[in-house]
Amino acid sequence: MRIYDIILKKRNGGTLTKDEIAAFIDGYVDGTIPDYQASALCMAIFFRGMTDEETAALTDCMARSGDMIDLSRFGDLTVDKHSTGGVGDKTTLIVAPIVASLGGKVAKMSGRGLGHTGGTVDKLASIPGMRVTMAREAFLRQVEEIGVAVIGQSGNLTPADKKLYALRDVTATVDSIPLITSSVMSKKIAAGSKSIVLDVKAGSGAFMKTADDARILARNMVAIGKACGRKMSALITDMNRPLGTAVGNTLEVIEAVKVLRGASKGDLYDVCVALATEMTMLFADLPHEKAEARVVSAIESGDAFRKMQAWVTAQGGDAAWLETAKYGDGAALAVPVVSPADGYITCMDTEEIGTAAVILGAGRSKKEDEIDDSAGILVCKKTGDAVKKGEILATLYTNDAAAVAPAEKRYLDALTVGSAAPEATDLIFDIIR
Amino acid sequence: MRIYDIILKKRNGGTLTKDEIAAFIDGYVDGTIPDYQASALCMAIFFRGMTDEETAALTDCMARSGDMIDLSRFGDLTVDKHSTGGVGDKTTLIVAPIVASLGGKVAKMSGRGLGHTGGTVDKLASIPGMRVTMAREAFLRQVEEIGVAVIGQSGNLTPADKKLYALRDVTATVDSIPLITSSVMSKKIAAGSKSIVLDVKAGSGAFMKTADDARILARNMVAIGKACGRKMSALITDMNRPLGTAVGNTLEVIEAVKVLRGASKGDLYDVCVALATEMTMLFADLPHEKAEARVVSAIESGDAFRKMQAWVTAQGGDAAWLETAKYGDGAALAVPVVSPADGYITCMDTEEIGTAAVILGAGRSKKEDEIDDSAGILVCKKTGDAVKKGEILATLYTNDAAAVAPAEKRYLDALTVGSAAPEATDLIFDIIR
Repeated sequence: MRIYDIILKKRNGGTLTKDEIAAFIDGYVDGTIPDYQASALCMAIFFRGMTDEETAALTDCMARSGDMIDLSRFGDLTVDKHSTGGVGDKTTLIVAPIVASLGGKVAKMSGRGLGHTGGTVDKLASIPGMRVTMAREAFLRQVEEIGVAVIGQSGNLTPADKKLYALRDVTATVDSIPLITSSVMSKKIAAGSKSIVLDVKAGSGAFMKTADDARILARNMVAIGKACGRKMSALITDMNRPLGTAVGNTLEVIEAVKVLRGASKGDLYDVCVALATEMTMLFADLPHEKAEARVVSAIESGDAFRKMQAWVTAQGGDAAWLETAKYGDGAALAVPVVSPADGYITCMDTEEIGTAAVILGAGRSKKEDEIDDSAGILVCKKTGDAVKKGEILATLYTNDAAAVAPAEKRYLDALTVGSAAPEATDLIFDIIR
Repeated sequence: MRIYDIILKKRNGGTLTKDEIAAFIDGYVDGTIPDYQASALCMAIFFRGMTDEETAALTDCMARSGDMIDLSRFGDLTVDKHSTGGVGDKTTLIVAPIVASLGGKVAKMSGRGLGHTGGTVDKLASIPGMRVTMAREAFLRQVEEIGVAVIGQSGNLTPADKKLYALRDVTATVDSIPLITSSVMSKKIAAGSKSIVLDVKAGSGAFMKTADDARILARNMVAIGKACGRKMSALITDMNRPLGTAVGNTLEVIEAVKVLRGASKGDLYDVCVALATEMTMLFADLPHEKAEARVVSAIESGDAFRKMQAWVTAQGGDAAWLETAKYGDGAALAVPVVSPADGYITCMDTEEIGTAAVILGAGRSKKEDEIDDSAGILVCKKTGDAVKKGEILATLYTNDAAAVAPAEKRYLDALTVGSAAPEATDLIFDIIR
């Protein structure tokens, strides 16, 4: 089986067999297929697409290219959540303990953040004492005992995806539905959970700019997950405004605690309830109403927050800190950003807001950068809100005085203020099951 | 200007600017653009195509990537001919002296043959004493004095095409009209002639399998050549049968001499007259009838053959040999291939016939292979001919007894013998001016 013939077949609109896809992935990982043939094939896939069978085979091959986490000891109770990225997304910190408090098993390996999107592991690591690395057996034991463990990716998970993604990133072949799907789903399949709920973001801060595009991607990922034997569900959620109000590690943990304790009931609460409901429907095999009722009850009874405390304690973190930490802790500077005019916020470029937070020290521009956990932004006014000239739009937190002016400019540039209120948009565009 | 953005623009159906195309070619030749980005761009071009302006810019950049032969001293008299490949194509040996005898200047640098298509330089080199390498100034002086010089490619002509073609060859991006056009035309533009006549082959032994595909390619090449300031014309000719009867270096030279002396008037004669007519129309600025009359008269008067003798003499070859050489000279074995059945030849796979000749020693499988000039095939029966069981279809010439059986099998496998005569097809499908 020659890679040339595989490229030619796909280029001419053919459907690749499982063996052809395996030959490509195996050869690319072991280096016998060079980058220039892999990139030509990716471009052909961009144009010709892939059938669900091809995408499932590609996903399966990439998942098997490295370690596969074996969660079979937990039966059908394991449930994972994946977000396609976004700014201020701290949903994992909230839904994981909710679901664990209801009997689900959340065994999650998460990436570190780069660029405008913060990583879940970075957020967790901002809790004093919290460990985000753990040996495989201790990780599984914690899932057994507490129901939830979240650590940074370790070992050799989906090397095929790592190598192929790096190539796609420089050859303009990232935004192909089957290639995105196989990249995301191979990691989820290798991570071992039986049920997977996806949060596919649509909007300015997300990879998919429109709800329609996000819907196509979500449908494909759900189909491929099912083809790989997983129980699947996907929400399409709005990323035309930051989710919740906090951007930055400590700020987001504090906000997550508020939501988990039922003390904050905005868009973040709604999305988390929806995600946790989908997860509970899958792992507990419940209809929507029952699952939702259990999720709400877990929050209101305090079970979910107690589960978070147990989780944090199990990973060496200071559970008491969760109750005492306040917005602004650790940041020498708290600088309000005020509205330059009267009007309504009609649009927020969440990617730019994320970049403003990175400038303040809340994220990494390069892999080697140190994060200032206390740095970030607390958003006061969001899309649709009326604002008056001089009114506070947000507060910037940082320990770097030089960062304030550029971050403030960036933040203001990210907002569009108009004279009329914009049409209200849905927070959750769709659910694909 | 980033190559990533250039790939993305073409992938999304955009039209590349001259500067973007130049950045690609310059960067690829100097190594700052890696193969994997170049192959992704070639695949995007395969799918999106190129406008004539883009193809002309690509052709121009590739032509300028190395040496440019300066033929300006000859004014508008220079005329080149290019064939897109085929089996038994010895037209250059015939049309070059015809055109030179009419006042045209044929300054040709030609490639060596590889695979089933023999190179013009290999054919010339089979004439005893003939030199096919020459210093640039001597080459130009011969063109000045004799009107024709044909040598092997030397110097650094179109390095961009060499590098890009090697990449396209392994990434399934060869058969893209703008990429074929820029590859062929960049070499012709760099070679310096004012007028260029193309012989685009269509059929089993050619790159373009149908006349329609060949027509599209020919139109594109003519348009791009004109955009680069050249006078252009293209014939679309049949390659569903070998052109003429001889395949193999010495055999083909002998056949060329027969045609040039007017002693052989089959398909080869017709195509050569048509090509030489187009060349004469361009360099002498004559209407078709006048140009054709001059070409026929050059053959019948003996001027064309005398020009070939002068040309061969100028390059050190034995002009007397041209008159005395006979089919079979130098080959220890002459083995007839006989028809296994009665019927009609309905189809000839000329590529396979070329391969049979290579087996006999007439061509190279690898660049390092030695050619046996005397080896080859003399075809007696061609597509459309009636054959009887036991009748001679062809004669195989070789000095390698072990090659006879496999070559004979290959030759017979290349023929389809049916019970009814096939529909007659045109030899020259079209002329694009």
